[in-house]
Amino acid sequence: MVIRPLAEIGMPLSEVDTPALLVDLDAFEGNLRRLADAAAAYPVRLRPHAKTHKCPLIALRQIAAGAVGVCCQKVAEAEAMVQGGVRNVLVSNEIVGAGKLLRLAALAQEAWIGVCVDDAANVEQISEAAASLGVTLSVLVEVNVGGNRCGVHPGEAVLQLAQLIAGSPGLRFAGLQAYQGKAQHVREYAKRKEAIDKAVEMLQMTTRLLEKHGLACELISGAGTGTYPFEAASGVFNEVQPGSYIFMDADYGRDLDRNGKPVADFAHSLFVLATVMSHPVKERAALDAGHKALSMDSGYPLVVGKPGVEYVNASDEQGMLSLQGPGCALEIGEKVRLIPGHCDPTVNLHDWFVGYRGERVEALWPIAARGAGF
Amino acid sequence: MVIRPLAEIGMPLSEVDTPALLVDLDAFEGNLRRLADAAAAYPVRLRPHAKTHKCPLIALRQIAAGAVGVCCQKVAEAEAMVQGGVRNVLVSNEIVGAGKLLRLAALAQEAWIGVCVDDAANVEQISEAAASLGVTLSVLVEVNVGGNRCGVHPGEAVLQLAQLIAGSPGLRFAGLQAYQGKAQHVREYAKRKEAIDKAVEMLQMTTRLLEKHGLACELISGAGTGTYPFEAASGVFNEVQPGSYIFMDADYGRDLDRNGKPVADFAHSLFVLATVMSHPVKERAALDAGHKALSMDSGYPLVVGKPGVEYVNASDEQGMLSLQGPGCALEIGEKVRLIPGHCDPTVNLHDWFVGYRGERVEALWPIAARGAGF
Repeated sequence: MVIRPLAEIGMPLSEVDTPALLVDLDAFEGNLRRLADAAAAYPVRLRPHAKTHKCPLIALRQIAAGAVGVCCQKVAEAEAMVQGGVRNVLVSNEIVGAGKLLRLAALAQEAWIGVCVDDAANVEQISEAAASLGVTLSVLVEVNVGGNRCGVHPGEAVLQLAQLIAGSPGLRFAGLQAYQGKAQHVREYAKRKEAIDKAVEMLQMTTRLLEKHGLACELISGAGTGTYPFEAASGVFNEVQPGSYIFMDADYGRDLDRNGKPVADFAHSLFVLATVMSHPVKERAALDAGHKALSMDSGYPLVVGKPGVEYVNASDEQGMLSLQGPGCALEIGEKVRLIPGHCDPTVNLHDWFVGYRGERVEALWPIAARGAGF
Repeated sequence: MVIRPLAEIGMPLSEVDTPALLVDLDAFEGNLRRLADAAAAYPVRLRPHAKTHKCPLIALRQIAAGAVGVCCQKVAEAEAMVQGGVRNVLVSNEIVGAGKLLRLAALAQEAWIGVCVDDAANVEQISEAAASLGVTLSVLVEVNVGGNRCGVHPGEAVLQLAQLIAGSPGLRFAGLQAYQGKAQHVREYAKRKEAIDKAVEMLQMTTRLLEKHGLACELISGAGTGTYPFEAASGVFNEVQPGSYIFMDADYGRDLDRNGKPVADFAHSLFVLATVMSHPVKERAALDAGHKALSMDSGYPLVVGKPGVEYVNASDEQGMLSLQGPGCALEIGEKVRLIPGHCDPTVNLHDWFVGYRGERVEALWPIAARGAGF
């Protein structure tokens, strides 16, 4: 079934059908500028993560604002980006399997394509795919800098993979991928910084070793919305990869700055618009947005502008609201804006962004890479 | 972007691209028969919930196995079902807004369509929509039987709405919707039964009141996979609405039977096939299936057939495995089957079911109502 947009350009926000994924364009553009300005103050390039928005139109705006290109996690996301006009895509993830690697290599006929590795046999597979299509893929070694997901240990293991890449047909050794995923949601500022300081030390040691063996790192890429100022100021990273900054979410809103206050670098620009569809008793109402309109992996969404109203429970297609305190009232049919707990997987549940300015719909952007997880 | 299926008919399972949503057809058909047989032993009709599978082809198989029709939660789901050939759809949920109600009424030109209400003004809106298209909608009063989501209190409030429906142009009072959502995952058998016993008492009182006022309930519908035998045996319910039974999931697998053992009425037939894409150290590996391939709202997925291997953490596109214990080994590129924590929202992340028998792909079913949440 083809999913149509739930709004029309020019429509007042109040008429948008629900559950719809809204983008406040003023807040969105502010976030775009703010990160570009912040990155310009450091000797780093900006490579926002497109897994957050899955939308080539947004990627092109990020590039117009100064980004060198984008990151993706999957080949199908990269395909959507290249099809949408993006000409510089780093797959900041390992890609395994001959079929996927051929698709990745085919993209290098159209664009600069980078990919990460943490395994020698995988390097050989990537080389085969690139060589068979006569293209060059840029390959980064992923380094585990404390996140304990993918990536090899800093030091000798990186050198071995880098040498293997440098000697493989169809491949260019392009540098290091070093994302400290665990640090992004460490709430306390000093502890977040400490995690990145440790990552930087590991990378310094590793790049010295590589240089000793004549291997230069064109890219040392990493960082997310929670830590990018640390990586940007490190003198080691030369690219930062924040994704969520463009939208923000309830979870990132809980990170604290150096004064112990919630980080306020970026504004919430992403909302799920929902309708009150049941209100059987004064203290309880149901919205038409549950697990299939909002990803709850980082907690329930926040209700905007309704003091005393809280999203307290979800089923597949319903969100239960608790109404507590004086003056707290809702009506059936009323529309409510929600700040998602976690922006990336929430975006992946929708097919369209409905962009609005003030109270008027101004843009309908297809989420071209929705479901593009393969 | 159009999402193609990740398999071809006849392909060995080992060649299916990942992450793919698999259906074990033997287990699936067993579940289909088992519920049909169980329902046949009671004086109840079977109306499986289609929000679980969102696939008209599966709905038609359920109907061929004896179901009277299906349930949906959203108008767009009902549209997908009717477009796919289903001719009896109960929207077991409140539908609010003139646009959505006109779409619902339009479906009644093609099929028997029921909808639930728990508000008088909503009854008037539904009546307007039905009357304006010259169709008849069957309307059920939703009763809160302890789930504390939607629905009015049992008794007088139900009577008032039923009388309003019965007197409204374009509407037929069709009966009661009484789903005890909270009871489905009460682990202990006796407590699950107790919750439904209470629901049954409330309904008995309510139907007596309705009968006294000359209102008969053609449908008294409710129940889920966790409680349906209780509703079926109650003598009050005449329809049951299990959905998850067709697939099962890790969460339902934790419900206990009367002997304190995991309920084993139905087999796991739904899996996410994932590939090991990183294995940097012996005790840790990463799969290519995270939050965007599996809904984690009811916990992490279970790993099939790999003792000592546990899915312990997820990011957007990665699932981290812990490997503990002797003989526990994986290889990069190896494929692993996962039992989702919660089947319904996991299905909604995918575009195709890949049906297999033994080790061979036998069916590709589009998930037509994927994303149909409006």
